[in-house]
Amino acid sequence: MPFKQIKGGLCAPKGFRAAAISAGIKDAKGTRDDLTIIASDLPCISAGTFTTNKVKAAPVRITQAHLRAKDLRAIIANSGNANACTGVRGINDARAMADATAKALGLTRREVGVCSTGVIGLPLPIDRITDKIAPLCETLSAKNGEAVAKAIMTSDTTKKEIAITVDLDGQKVRIGACAKGAGMICPSMATMLCFVTTDANLSKTCLQKNVLDTVEDSFNRICIDGDMSTNDTVLVLSNGAAGGPRIARGSKACRQFRDALQHVLLELAKAIVRDGERVTKFVTLEVKGAPTYLDAKKVAEAVSKSALVKASWNGGDPNWGRVIHAVGYSRARIREELIDISYNGKPACEGGLVAKTDLHELRAIADEKEFTITIDLHLGRADYTIYTSDISPEYIDFNRSEYAYWKNARS
Amino acid sequence: MPFKQIKGGLCAPKGFRAAAISAGIKDAKGTRDDLTIIASDLPCISAGTFTTNKVKAAPVRITQAHLRAKDLRAIIANSGNANACTGVRGINDARAMADATAKALGLTRREVGVCSTGVIGLPLPIDRITDKIAPLCETLSAKNGEAVAKAIMTSDTTKKEIAITVDLDGQKVRIGACAKGAGMICPSMATMLCFVTTDANLSKTCLQKNVLDTVEDSFNRICIDGDMSTNDTVLVLSNGAAGGPRIARGSKACRQFRDALQHVLLELAKAIVRDGERVTKFVTLEVKGAPTYLDAKKVAEAVSKSALVKASWNGGDPNWGRVIHAVGYSRARIREELIDISYNGKPACEGGLVAKTDLHELRAIADEKEFTITIDLHLGRADYTIYTSDISPEYIDFNRSEYAYWKNARS
Repeated sequence: MPFKQIKGGLCAPKGFRAAAISAGIKDAKGTRDDLTIIASDLPCISAGTFTTNKVKAAPVRITQAHLRAKDLRAIIANSGNANACTGVRGINDARAMADATAKALGLTRREVGVCSTGVIGLPLPIDRITDKIAPLCETLSAKNGEAVAKAIMTSDTTKKEIAITVDLDGQKVRIGACAKGAGMICPSMATMLCFVTTDANLSKTCLQKNVLDTVEDSFNRICIDGDMSTNDTVLVLSNGAAGGPRIARGSKACRQFRDALQHVLLELAKAIVRDGERVTKFVTLEVKGAPTYLDAKKVAEAVSKSALVKASWNGGDPNWGRVIHAVGYSRARIREELIDISYNGKPACEGGLVAKTDLHELRAIADEKEFTITIDLHLGRADYTIYTSDISPEYIDFNRSEYAYWKNARS
Repeated sequence: MPFKQIKGGLCAPKGFRAAAISAGIKDAKGTRDDLTIIASDLPCISAGTFTTNKVKAAPVRITQAHLRAKDLRAIIANSGNANACTGVRGINDARAMADATAKALGLTRREVGVCSTGVIGLPLPIDRITDKIAPLCETLSAKNGEAVAKAIMTSDTTKKEIAITVDLDGQKVRIGACAKGAGMICPSMATMLCFVTTDANLSKTCLQKNVLDTVEDSFNRICIDGDMSTNDTVLVLSNGAAGGPRIARGSKACRQFRDALQHVLLELAKAIVRDGERVTKFVTLEVKGAPTYLDAKKVAEAVSKSALVKASWNGGDPNWGRVIHAVGYSRARIREELIDISYNGKPACEGGLVAKTDLHELRAIADEKEFTITIDLHLGRADYTIYTSDISPEYIDFNRSEYAYWKNARS
């Protein structure tokens, strides 16, 4: 389906304004924006999904509660500190961020979503943050979509934003979005956050259903370690500013919105993998012919999580032996003698045995920056696709120590 | 319990002889032994445990069948090639190894166990192997325990063997054992193999029960990715040469044998972790206060598998935030606000919050080559301990590519 890309990110849809500022969280000198807001001029309907980690950051708990009580109309977010494992103080700090934002914008506290990303276990410098919220809200502008995308970055090397227009049963609407996260295994420094705005006039049930479905088929296809962080959050605000009749769940326009949202989230999800910490390869891993969806998912997750498989991708090694080894311990129903494994369609393994494809040909594929591995179990019709990456020596180096950060933060 | 260490490895118990030779599997020049045998002069009773990977190597399938039919009296093993993913040919090759060994020793095929370790997906050079089996058997000697331990090494940097004497209700017996495996995540190049001999006069049921129990509390406490290889095998032969009455299951002597076997297997399991590929740290991970054994196990496995946690160990970083983050996604029952995490007994996290321990003190512990992390969930009485290691940039480098090996093997 052709979606027309437009500029403006989160502020591309009508009636949304944004701002970003430094509150000195990332660094005391305030050289980088680390506090940001997105707000709608009109009331919104809203939906969200959150980490399934049982250790949940304070802002996740607060935003979940707000979302259950009211529809959100604004999101306040900081980077540099996750406000996770911070106890009662963390909850009070997250509330204080919502309170200050609500006061500055003339909203109630529960109309404000709160997100944080960064290091776990340190209290927020809350006074520095709340002091900056009123000035931040004074600079709200429809030109600042990109500023949000940049301000939420932590170990990301590129901003991740997108905006499209789409025709919903005759009504032209816009969807804007940005995300952050250094992908691969959702590291603690690299919570996945995603904010989406739209001026479509959606019913609450149409929005909620579509958000659940499309997150499952996008961000849940890359968080490949089941390693969800304490802070992962997707929030979607819909203000109806495009006009037109309200879009009911089950309508043609609702399905069209689903396809558009799917496109937006999958593009951002893939961008997160490509920007994974010290990643050199983007691998599309397709599992086919599984007896059930769950079997296909187990195989895809086992293969994409294996450190040995990931190391071989880093080396450009078409090592199907490690792939089938991971298939074997995935706990999925399989029959070794039926398994085919191919690289960009070239067979490496047929019926559980080494295929005749020239090794140099497979090597050339595995040497490319992006390739597709297809595992056909030949046991049914279920399939599952995961977007994943290699693991590099530089990744381990990069993640060896946050000690210097801690020492500074506590001194 | 004090066990007296003795020399001789697998051949320390009475009535066992061993031999090793090069069959040119590891390298065509034959500079390193890669074919080895251990055999008993007397009939044995035997027991074994095998990989749970659904992709099983041919020698695993054959040895499982032999063990069901008869008691093993000899084990023939090769390194350098796993004979895995080799289809019907692989089965025939494993049988041929057993046949040649049985012929040379005057046994039946089913009295011979077969083990292989090395690269997946390549057929064995079976003629070279079977040609060497008769000469190999001619050199059987009670002095060759160490030769077996060396011949089964692949990416191991040190041999792993042990022998002890133990008093079983008044009867002095010996247990000898060796193992190979480069630990950490049971990589495909590094199948775990373990052979144990004893001259204790055990009943079949006493032996079987003790082998199952002690493998669970040793090797299954280190195979931390659930990443069992296609070839993992533990085989125990007991020939009764020490004399004395037959030891029945449930007797005092049977329990004493269990403790001794546990000691032997746990020492070898820890040696495998210490010799893990490019490992720099040995971490004992204790989970306490879990509501159930399964919850404790889930927490221990999630933490010990996390690439981020392992990277922080490599960096000597006392990063309890990453540990609690893994506890949170382990799917175990937990309550964040009750969790304590300590390094060598020094609290790093108390009640889900950062503890007051001086950071330099924790840093000094995490900088050591060996330390213990204790996670207390304060929700019950179940516990679980895993022995694990860091992951290093050098590990990824080491595992980047087997391509050169493959190219040579196929040319």
